[in-house]
Amino acid sequence: MSSEFGNLLKISVFGQSHGRAIGVVVDGLPAGESIDLDELNAFLTRRKPGKSPLSTTRKESDAPLFLSGLENGVTCGAPLCAVIENSDQHSSDYDALRDKPRPGHADYTAYVKWGGHADMRGGGHFSGRLTAPLCIAGGIAKQILARRGVYVGAHLASVGTEQDAPLPLRPTRELFDSVAAKPFPVLDDQAGERMQAVILAARQNLDSVGGVIECAAVGLPAGLGDPMFGGVENHLAAALFGIPAVKGVEFGDGFAAARAHGSENNDPFVMEDGRVAAETNHAGGILGGITNGMPIVLRTAMKPTPSIARPQRTVSLSAGENAELVIHGRHDPCIAHRAVPVVEAVTAAVLLDLLLEGNHGTF
Amino acid sequence: MSSEFGNLLKISVFGQSHGRAIGVVVDGLPAGESIDLDELNAFLTRRKPGKSPLSTTRKESDAPLFLSGLENGVTCGAPLCAVIENSDQHSSDYDALRDKPRPGHADYTAYVKWGGHADMRGGGHFSGRLTAPLCIAGGIAKQILARRGVYVGAHLASVGTEQDAPLPLRPTRELFDSVAAKPFPVLDDQAGERMQAVILAARQNLDSVGGVIECAAVGLPAGLGDPMFGGVENHLAAALFGIPAVKGVEFGDGFAAARAHGSENNDPFVMEDGRVAAETNHAGGILGGITNGMPIVLRTAMKPTPSIARPQRTVSLSAGENAELVIHGRHDPCIAHRAVPVVEAVTAAVLLDLLLEGNHGTF
Amino acid sequence: MSSEFGNLLKISVFGQSHGRAIGVVVDGLPAGESIDLDELNAFLTRRKPGKSPLSTTRKESDAPLFLSGLENGVTCGAPLCAVIENSDQHSSDYDALRDKPRPGHADYTAYVKWGGHADMRGGGHFSGRLTAPLCIAGGIAKQILARRGVYVGAHLASVGTEQDAPLPLRPTRELFDSVAAKPFPVLDDQAGERMQAVILAARQNLDSVGGVIECAAVGLPAGLGDPMFGGVENHLAAALFGIPAVKGVEFGDGFAAARAHGSENNDPFVMEDGRVAAETNHAGGILGGITNGMPIVLRTAMKPTPSIARPQRTVSLSAGENAELVIHGRHDPCIAHRAVPVVEAVTAAVLLDLLLEGNHGTF
Amino acid sequence: MSSEFGNLLKISVFGQSHGRAIGVVVDGLPAGESIDLDELNAFLTRRKPGKSPLSTTRKESDAPLFLSGLENGVTCGAPLCAVIENSDQHSSDYDALRDKPRPGHADYTAYVKWGGHADMRGGGHFSGRLTAPLCIAGGIAKQILARRGVYVGAHLASVGTEQDAPLPLRPTRELFDSVAAKPFPVLDDQAGERMQAVILAARQNLDSVGGVIECAAVGLPAGLGDPMFGGVENHLAAALFGIPAVKGVEFGDGFAAARAHGSENNDPFVMEDGRVAAETNHAGGILGGITNGMPIVLRTAMKPTPSIARPQRTVSLSAGENAELVIHGRHDPCIAHRAVPVVEAVTAAVLLDLLLEGNHGTF
Repeated sequence: MSSEFGNLLKISVFGQSHGRAIGVVVDGLPAGESIDLDELNAFLTRRKPGKSPLSTTRKESDAPLFLSGLENGVTCGAPLCAVIENSDQHSSDYDALRDKPRPGHADYTAYVKWGGHADMRGGGHFSGRLTAPLCIAGGIAKQILARRGVYVGAHLASVGTEQDAPLPLRPTRELFDSVAAKPFPVLDDQAGERMQAVILAARQNLDSVGGVIECAAVGLPAGLGDPMFGGVENHLAAALFGIPAVKGVEFGDGFAAARAHGSENNDPFVMEDGRVAAETNHAGGILGGITNGMPIVLRTAMKPTPSIARPQRTVSLSAGENAELVIHGRHDPCIAHRAVPVVEAVTAAVLLDLLLEGNHGTF
Repeated sequence: MSSEFGNLLKISVFGQSHGRAIGVVVDGLPAGESIDLDELNAFLTRRKPGKSPLSTTRKESDAPLFLSGLENGVTCGAPLCAVIENSDQHSSDYDALRDKPRPGHADYTAYVKWGGHADMRGGGHFSGRLTAPLCIAGGIAKQILARRGVYVGAHLASVGTEQDAPLPLRPTRELFDSVAAKPFPVLDDQAGERMQAVILAARQNLDSVGGVIECAAVGLPAGLGDPMFGGVENHLAAALFGIPAVKGVEFGDGFAAARAHGSENNDPFVMEDGRVAAETNHAGGILGGITNGMPIVLRTAMKPTPSIARPQRTVSLSAGENAELVIHGRHDPCIAHRAVPVVEAVTAAVLLDLLLEGNHGTF
Repeated sequence: MSSEFGNLLKISVFGQSHGRAIGVVVDGLPAGESIDLDELNAFLTRRKPGKSPLSTTRKESDAPLFLSGLENGVTCGAPLCAVIENSDQHSSDYDALRDKPRPGHADYTAYVKWGGHADMRGGGHFSGRLTAPLCIAGGIAKQILARRGVYVGAHLASVGTEQDAPLPLRPTRELFDSVAAKPFPVLDDQAGERMQAVILAARQNLDSVGGVIECAAVGLPAGLGDPMFGGVENHLAAALFGIPAVKGVEFGDGFAAARAHGSENNDPFVMEDGRVAAETNHAGGILGGITNGMPIVLRTAMKPTPSIARPQRTVSLSAGENAELVIHGRHDPCIAHRAVPVVEAVTAAVLLDLLLEGNHGTF
Repeated sequence: MSSEFGNLLKISVFGQSHGRAIGVVVDGLPAGESIDLDELNAFLTRRKPGKSPLSTTRKESDAPLFLSGLENGVTCGAPLCAVIENSDQHSSDYDALRDKPRPGHADYTAYVKWGGHADMRGGGHFSGRLTAPLCIAGGIAKQILARRGVYVGAHLASVGTEQDAPLPLRPTRELFDSVAAKPFPVLDDQAGERMQAVILAARQNLDSVGGVIECAAVGLPAGLGDPMFGGVENHLAAALFGIPAVKGVEFGDGFAAARAHGSENNDPFVMEDGRVAAETNHAGGILGGITNGMPIVLRTAMKPTPSIARPQRTVSLSAGENAELVIHGRHDPCIAHRAVPVVEAVTAAVLLDLLLEGNHGTF
């Protein structure tokens, strides 16, 4: 496993930030699925930069070109490949960065791994730009899931210490759609304004700030996933940590459950319309790695963007001595709000893979 | 992937709590590695129940029997299989549980997946007892790593809201050994007493309580791991979520990083004895999925034990109606302190796998 | 991948010929499958040695002990582990072999890989004895497949240059059963007698002889398998080459197709009882990697047993010079007839895995 | 696994014959490897059609466009993506084929799998054209291997019943180069002329003919590969069966070994320049799945091209009745000679993957 995840549905991402193109191969998509390109482009727009002072002013063209796998807008069963061409990029500052690794970035670890050969202009293969092809794959997965009544949505749960309102016990497609339609993807717009103020303050201070994304999926059947290392949590976490800047993943109450008592954290089962449900959802829809039919709820911790305009201490690799670094260019003071659709995308792709696999517990 | 993880080193766990035996196959161990059985048994003892009122009074024999892979105590290259026989178990209450799934347990999801065929006595294949074979595999991995100067250790970082002291920037083997030798695995014994009081109070209240385990690994070279989905975090998280009760995994500052600013969270690089190091370790030793040579630091959130003695609401699957459940038997009021070596074991196994793979970035 | 194959159904084999026990973990078996132990033991008996002068006089106990995964003879969904204990073995000649690798055996390659640590007594992990646990896994798979109308059978197609009669276009379960019931698994008993004469002559000449096994599966739906590297042929070949002594695998007409013309090799489609069938089956039931509903037909080439009683030239690893070797002990003059159920077993396990995966081409 | 193979080095192929482009993602290439594009293009030219009456007159542009993974002609560590654009194709006859599956092709199985959504124009994703991106990946692997003294070469071993001369015991790079430079890739040009006559006769008879490709690799260290299902044969076979038209794979003497005696088939070990070698190479360089340092030798059986100009019997899927089919267009009377570099390419890619993995038997 490297720049790929999935079992029956494999998502393989390629490209560098300043290379010729970035893209994705999606192998295992079911045939006969109509892809609504307008809906897909709307989804891709949600992660695009350059829309407000909350993000970098850099413009990116994210229009995907489909090389294979689609015929007349319908999946044909063969692997789908979509690419996004990179337009000209400012690479002038690159030589300096080559010698002085940026704190918090992969410059140094890529240098150790690949020697001087790593193409780290703009972050190279580690760039947040690589989340655009992930969103192509995930946006397609979302459409296929929605056709089966499975909806995946997310909101920005916090920025710094400012928090959004909590998700309801049973989020709906409508709720997901309303958040997705907002320029700032929160449930509570007043909380959203406080979060935006935190981001703008960070920018003004030549700094950046982190945040938490909360994602949910409704409509999944119970019984998906396998015990131990084949659980839904394992599959989702393995993929979610592939999103740049994710440093934590939790399901249901997650780390809060570690502070709770069993009497608070256990979700009582209850009959609901003749079916087994739970009164609460501290488990985030997963028990023993297997879905219980309640909404899947997860959160990802996004670290603050490492590119900040303040001078930072680093080393000169060539000189072997301490050095100072000033990063120029246009950077996001916070990446978390733009990463909301990315978390949705990865979650959707993993869930579609699990759904294709089905519940093979009995046969 | 189901009850197995790893790539070049595969760990496959089998068994049910009340079946004939539980065990593990470890495929891919390097040959010529001498296994110190006394050291291994001491490691296994750390997760054993029945040692104090902090855990269940149930006695478990964890003495491993090696069926293959070892010759005169030395690995021979062939897959190693070790089993632990189950002694007689009290299964009397099982029929009741079969009908009334325990909240917070996998009873209901296993029932959905496997129908009435699931052997859920004592938790079946989902039981915490399955962590004993994991510890055999991980204990062996720890010995092999230590021979190469890589040490893995852990402590109980919190129980409920009581917290242990933080790990130092550069934990040592001696620190790991001293924590491992304690009956209650904390850095600060006074904090440990407060944590134990929380556990005993939970027991007295017929309740249980969760906790957080912090694990570190020192001595790893920089350059391990691959970008995106092949990162060290992805591999570790995919395995760690296989430990029963884990609901969250974070690396470095994790969710705290999501509340921080970039100027706080970035780790300045610095020359140290002619080598590149970092002044702080908010990244937990991993940048872009790849080790940077600093200690790997991770935390797992352990939910409170779902088996509590209070009456709980659930459903009767046969009657299709709401019901009450009282769980009898001996249960752990907290599982987190016993799970400390389990987190070490899984971490060690994953890291050995990555070390065997090596840094194949250049060739 | 090492001593394991499969995707949703994973078969992991462990043990050495002269170790304490050999066994298998089968992870992913559907729950609720009743295992007929008498039928399983009858299947295992087919590969057992010691039944006639055609094979080694060595006695092996192949009675499997189930450690997990079965409850009252029914699969419970958790990984199944079965072991076979090794009885005392004559290991006296081993020290000589350690220094002088046997031609045609894995002694030398295991020595290069694992140094002097390899446990190569009796062939170690490379021993044909390891096919007994494979037969446990495959025998169970055969029972589960048969319950769905899928039957797997095989015959000894040739020994040396003596050939059995060809399989009919549409083999039946009854045909498979009748071959399986014979002490020498051929279609044409007169051909079988000629083949047995070849084996006995090889034994008399202190030599051994190879053979070909032909295996077929009927009752599979069309549409299983994926294009290119996910084809049914890829999956089967990857597993079949794991059987010791297999040096070739072909499907349908295989190497004979390479000598044929398209007009001979193409199978005309034809309507048969309202369904698409083929008039001939040169393709062995697989086109483009995907089943077409015709019987799957494959052949494996089994090399002659490398252990022969004649003096052979080899080297002394310690002295670094040429040497002569005489192999004592009891050996099979031909392994192919005993390997017939092994090929069935591996084929059945792979096909069950593919059936569990299903035809996910549309969704 | 679908249109992908490999472990540390993953090769993922995409595209349909008449889609916009075909291509490949190669994930895991070591960084710092200079790619000689002229050498690569010369390699790609070897599989190109349109060069003689022995193959289709169809012209294909195979010039690869590199989207990622290369910087100034040197691998940078990130996944490499290369695409080949499809020029306009004649798709007029397609609608007829949609209804009447061509015997020997994947038309019918793709239809079963993907319903009417399969894009089967020109063979779609199953087309031999998809071997062009395979050759890009394999051509790059060949260059990287050659830099380490590992050379992979192949020749056309037979067409119909006409056979080329056998490979010498120790083929050299020079031999491989001389065969690769020939318009018809054989060792013995007189045999080559007889083989070409067979192909031209097939074309004249509106027919096609199969062939066998023999491939060898020299310079590999001993000790690569793992026992049982992780053997070099398993990995190679799993990938080689992904080449369209391959119906058999054998190593060393393969099916001929099944006709031989042990005294003939065993390769005596012998000291050679102070190192262990073998006097013969019936094993094809692999014992117990692990390389022994002798050349790896394998053969693939290529079936005759299924597209022949004679009328053939098939069915009308819409009418559900028998039908006749005449395939128009330009087709190869034999694919085996053009597939020689494809077998080299796949072999090289698998071997590079195994070399990157290394011999992790001891550590």
